[in-house]
Amino acid sequence: MGKRVNLLMFSGEYDKALAALILANSSRELDAEVTIFFAFWGLMLIRDPERMSDEDKSLYEKMFAAATPKGPEELPLSRMNFAGMGKKMLMKMMEEEGAPTLADFLKGARKKQVRFYACKLSVEVMGFHPEELLPEVEIVDAKTYLKDAFESDIQLFI
Amino acid sequence: MGKRVNLLMFSGEYDKALAALILANSSRELDAEVTIFFAFWGLMLIRDPERMSDEDKSLYEKMFAAATPKGPEELPLSRMNFAGMGKKMLMKMMEEEGAPTLADFLKGARKKQVRFYACKLSVEVMGFHPEELLPEVEIVDAKTYLKDAFESDIQLFI
Amino acid sequence: MGKRVNLLMFSGEYDKALAALILANSSRELDAEVTIFFAFWGLMLIRDPERMSDEDKSLYEKMFAAATPKGPEELPLSRMNFAGMGKKMLMKMMEEEGAPTLADFLKGARKKQVRFYACKLSVEVMGFHPEELLPEVEIVDAKTYLKDAFESDIQLFI
Repeated sequence: MGKRVNLLMFSGEYDKALAALILANSSRELDAEVTIFFAFWGLMLIRDPERMSDEDKSLYEKMFAAATPKGPEELPLSRMNFAGMGKKMLMKMMEEEGAPTLADFLKGARKKQVRFYACKLSVEVMGFHPEELLPEVEIVDAKTYLKDAFESDIQLFI
Repeated sequence: MGKRVNLLMFSGEYDKALAALILANSSRELDAEVTIFFAFWGLMLIRDPERMSDEDKSLYEKMFAAATPKGPEELPLSRMNFAGMGKKMLMKMMEEEGAPTLADFLKGARKKQVRFYACKLSVEVMGFHPEELLPEVEIVDAKTYLKDAFESDIQLFI
Repeated sequence: MGKRVNLLMFSGEYDKALAALILANSSRELDAEVTIFFAFWGLMLIRDPERMSDEDKSLYEKMFAAATPKGPEELPLSRMNFAGMGKKMLMKMMEEEGAPTLADFLKGARKKQVRFYACKLSVEVMGFHPEELLPEVEIVDAKTYLKDAFESDIQLFI
């Protein structure tokens, strides 16, 4: 089809990340090119739990790194207390249906060569070192994101 | 105008659903075709309160069905406690202005023939039976949504 | 490039407003035209703290005006308690990086002539007087927003 999809992943929540990755992977299966630009809380999804380090971080950056989710399975729900249903309940229901987890979908996106961009300003403000992110992540500014978005057929802010 | 609008309704909140339906109905009044793809919490908006049933549901699915909003007027606000203002206050302010309720906008969208898609995976994970949703809802996968989105002039993730 | 960007600013949160204004300002720097349509909670960002008045407001409207953020720097985070990190911590981390504040980005957007639309229905329901908003804000209906969005290359719901 020659189509392009561009997702701006702002949220750092399990259910929204699931939606983003299902859209990304399904787009790849339709032969569309896909870019995800991770900004703000979205960066939580692409931290590499094996490669975290506190070196050269300010006190706030250390506190922040310690207090935030490390990798996909630690992300909270966007509606943690929505109707009293917690993340565990959703996970159980997904398991009953044999649905893959967020980590599986992330693995799928990496294998399918979804392009991963990380927002430079967000990375700097949060004090993340580039090597703490998944290795294929490119750190780019908002203009690089915009240029990709201008050439895309679908753009979503998630 | 021959335009097309495609909304991905992910959130299950009164104010966001209001925004989505106002956009859908206004687009129809401009002669645009409109598709809304309801996924995750968005499904709460298209449950038919008259047709719910616990038959063949797992324990988690029954608990989930009981604990979640049944139909449009039960949806919570995205900012329930935002500045201490609850949903009742917003409803009162809408009433003072003579603004229609969410149920009215939903009725309008159905009358104006907005296309309603429900996400297959979400329906399965949440354990909803197709007959528990509004009768015009079509249950489709992410690729069907994407194909519609590719042909649309506006795509929003709400 | 002759490109156009259209943002629907629904949320009234510091971090999301920051994202919207960074995208708007970066788009202007790429010579794209930019429109932001402020609806619902998004209106909080364009209230003019110097020009608020309770004249002719109903009781609910007065309570609402008093209880909600007055101008950009008062907006809360979308994840106030996300991992225990409050807004103060984010502000400190931004300060450490020498990043501008939301008020700075808003000033930048005004200087760069980003077009500001406010949703008529939202303004009426919230009981805001037009003169309580920033002077360049135009109050328009959903159809005016849609017509601008149809002509745009990127549309996002934030």
